[in-house]
Amino acid sequence: MFKARVDKVRNAMKAEGLSQLLVTDPDSIRYLTDIYNHPMERFWGFLIRAEGGSVLFANRLFRLGPVDAEIVLFDDTDSVAKVVCPYLGEGRLGVDSTMAARFLIPFMSEIPGLKPVLADACVNGVRAIKDEEEQKRMRESSLINDRAMEKLTGFIRDGVTEKECAEFIMKCYAEEGCPGNAFTPIVSFGANAADPHHHADGTVLKDGDCILVDTGCVWKSYCSDMTRTFYWKFVKDEDRKIYEICRDANLLAEAEVRPGRKFCEIDLTARRHIESFGYGPNFTHRLGHSIGLADHEGEDVSSVNEHVIKPGMCFSIEPGIYLPGNTGVRVEDLVLVTEDGCEILNHYSKELIVLGK
Amino acid sequence: MFKARVDKVRNAMKAEGLSQLLVTDPDSIRYLTDIYNHPMERFWGFLIRAEGGSVLFANRLFRLGPVDAEIVLFDDTDSVAKVVCPYLGEGRLGVDSTMAARFLIPFMSEIPGLKPVLADACVNGVRAIKDEEEQKRMRESSLINDRAMEKLTGFIRDGVTEKECAEFIMKCYAEEGCPGNAFTPIVSFGANAADPHHHADGTVLKDGDCILVDTGCVWKSYCSDMTRTFYWKFVKDEDRKIYEICRDANLLAEAEVRPGRKFCEIDLTARRHIESFGYGPNFTHRLGHSIGLADHEGEDVSSVNEHVIKPGMCFSIEPGIYLPGNTGVRVEDLVLVTEDGCEILNHYSKELIVLGK
Repeated sequence: MFKARVDKVRNAMKAEGLSQLLVTDPDSIRYLTDIYNHPMERFWGFLIRAEGGSVLFANRLFRLGPVDAEIVLFDDTDSVAKVVCPYLGEGRLGVDSTMAARFLIPFMSEIPGLKPVLADACVNGVRAIKDEEEQKRMRESSLINDRAMEKLTGFIRDGVTEKECAEFIMKCYAEEGCPGNAFTPIVSFGANAADPHHHADGTVLKDGDCILVDTGCVWKSYCSDMTRTFYWKFVKDEDRKIYEICRDANLLAEAEVRPGRKFCEIDLTARRHIESFGYGPNFTHRLGHSIGLADHEGEDVSSVNEHVIKPGMCFSIEPGIYLPGNTGVRVEDLVLVTEDGCEILNHYSKELIVLGK
Repeated sequence: MFKARVDKVRNAMKAEGLSQLLVTDPDSIRYLTDIYNHPMERFWGFLIRAEGGSVLFANRLFRLGPVDAEIVLFDDTDSVAKVVCPYLGEGRLGVDSTMAARFLIPFMSEIPGLKPVLADACVNGVRAIKDEEEQKRMRESSLINDRAMEKLTGFIRDGVTEKECAEFIMKCYAEEGCPGNAFTPIVSFGANAADPHHHADGTVLKDGDCILVDTGCVWKSYCSDMTRTFYWKFVKDEDRKIYEICRDANLLAEAEVRPGRKFCEIDLTARRHIESFGYGPNFTHRLGHSIGLADHEGEDVSSVNEHVIKPGMCFSIEPGIYLPGNTGVRVEDLVLVTEDGCEILNHYSKELIVLGK
């Protein structure tokens, strides 16, 4: 399976006229070798040559396993450029978007003829198409997330804080046997929901607050990610209005997802709906992002992504409307692209739900 | 305070003959502006010009605050290179080690005469010297860590798993009011301790196991980091032997820390001691790392770091001995450099402790 994935990357390299690609994203290396290390500031790289042959560069502190590649080990005190550059040729070198300057700049000094180019797409294009086993894990991961959302609604009570809710969700994941979260759960009450990236804090729930919950777990290395927005005791008129606009934007966009459509068209569908009610300036982010081994993967669902959607791709659909100082709403599912549409991986209701009544 | 910090960075830039520095490390931007964002894949940068003037580049989704700089906002759909490059001049541009290729490569394409150079040192040299308030927070953070270690020894019992211990420590931090951990606590029983970066898992404690605990909290944005190694019920002869060698290496190294010494000399002191007992090959990492707003900061305590230690610096002293398939030991404190020596920030005992007797 891993050899087949590397071969697909080689084909992508050849299509780009790229003879060498240095993969440094730990999730991509895991995808291609089944070996995961969280390298922190250390170097961890997998060099793929289009014409065959791979080299795995690993600090001696890292865990390794069987791999179809030459292995080059080094110590903390070695110069990474001196270790890696003998394996690189002059000219174009494909690198990941995330590759750090502390490696890239010394490589360019060591090989004056080196021309680094961004080439994530060679791996991301392969990673984007989930195979059968990956699809199974994505489904299971989202089912766990659905159950955690359901359990959370039973936990929310008068006096509860955002942080307690976030911790409860993490406990739910642990009870399901997940090794962790895809990201720190976002739980935002009332005006805090106007900040799309609010950190759950000691804010106490008040009657009439919205309760925005954006959360995901990791299951067999695959991430889920879902947002629901609830209301406590009652729902204010403007909250109801923006909830329905946002939820409908979500439904309209999901209905448009199918092979052959462009990501930007899906974004536009949701955006036009929100704009038609005058809330365009309050939808401040892209519609979604790809997901899999990492919570945020290569393709984004944004107005500038002209790439075409293909079967097996998996991404989020998450329109939001944010009213600073007042309230916010976001409704998010993951979708998995099928041959003629998409499968929505989240099953938790998107009706407007008032809790605590 | 923030203006004074930026002025110190400007002095460092002038000493390096650097006219422009683009800071992208979120902790460094927080240190210089008091504004923190966790930008994920988005751009977040603070441009400092040696001759005066600063520019803060922020995605509209980010939180901002009052800052002594020109603010340039952009959206997810903007090209970061098109936004930032008009503010850059040709020639050398100082960048952080962590700056991602997805920004660096387009900047180089946009400005063909741009010559990026690694210049973290301009900020890190200033960040390395903790001021009075920072020293206070470093002390408090380590005191919380001491108390968590003490509480953990009361929690460890027959049948406990590594993961339960790690979760207990995180609960201790939360009870003290910490917003989180400096890193995921490492708890390793028995042979798991031979992997310096073992992830706490479902391994159950057995009689005679070592219990290696490497943990730290965040307190008022400042990190602690300490390792202690305990034994359960009894201690095997080889464990006792390597514990004492490792602990003595820690003590010898700490006794050498004072202004004017080089980091590599401190590493050598510990390393020579361990080597003299034949365990040199089992001490597989550097002796320590600087710490503050981030768990791992600029200077490392390694055999290749010739930099000179100065008052106000704070770093770890953490010798270890790892016997694969068998056991491991590490003893770590944080030290704060004073005018004529160092203050050891951890007070938890370094005597060999057998628990459960």
